[in-house]
Amino acid sequence: MRLALGHQLQAGLEASFSTPAADHRALVRAAWPMLARDEMDPVFAVMCELSGLAAAGRESYAAGALQLAQAFVEWLQPFLDGDASHRRAEAQAAVVLVDALLLARQLLGADAALGPLTSL
Amino acid sequence: MRLALGHQLQAGLEASFSTPAADHRALVRAAWPMLARDEMDPVFAVMCELSGLAAAGRESYAAGALQLAQAFVEWLQPFLDGDASHRRAEAQAAVVLVDALLLARQLLGADAALGPLTSL
Repeated sequence: MRLALGHQLQAGLEASFSTPAADHRALVRAAWPMLARDEMDPVFAVMCELSGLAAAGRESYAAGALQLAQAFVEWLQPFLDGDASHRRAEAQAAVVLVDALLLARQLLGADAALGPLTSL
Repeated sequence: MRLALGHQLQAGLEASFSTPAADHRALVRAAWPMLARDEMDPVFAVMCELSGLAAAGRESYAAGALQLAQAFVEWLQPFLDGDASHRRAEAQAAVVLVDALLLARQLLGADAALGPLTSL
């Protein structure tokens, strides 16, 4: 079930990224409507738990969380414009920002006013 | 020791915020040089641990993490320009973004390329 959601999300994001983004803000703006959906929340709750335990200094989770973040950074780079170092830095910024947004959504609820961060 | 650092940080931030910021990005850009310092890292490690455990669904930490974030949102509002609802939304965005940046610094190290998020 969660695997199916993951594939559906990936396909949805690829469709949202039809035009290469100039920077992390354009990328997050395009991605957020796909991410901020009730049916995705249980998936991201697991991700938030993993990165939360990593943030809390549980070493065994830190490696996994970093590996997952790194995989997302790699996956995002083709959807960005510019040279390799720009794309890498903006992909990393997008992953950091999306993590923060998903965490805020989990903690503050779906109605949290995250507009300033998602309609940049 | 940590209390002294907290007061020093607060004074430093107030000095950095001499001009009211237009939005969360201007606020974070002004604040980041005060936050991204080696001597502050142990303080923020504790904060990241607290918000990490909250993110991981440890209910007893979630209340504390939200209370702390709420206190920061209140404290930041006078340093922003605009009407009350704009200042509230931008202060909340700044706290979410700073949490993400401090967490990335803890996990990725002080050399992490966070430029796209801090020199907006």
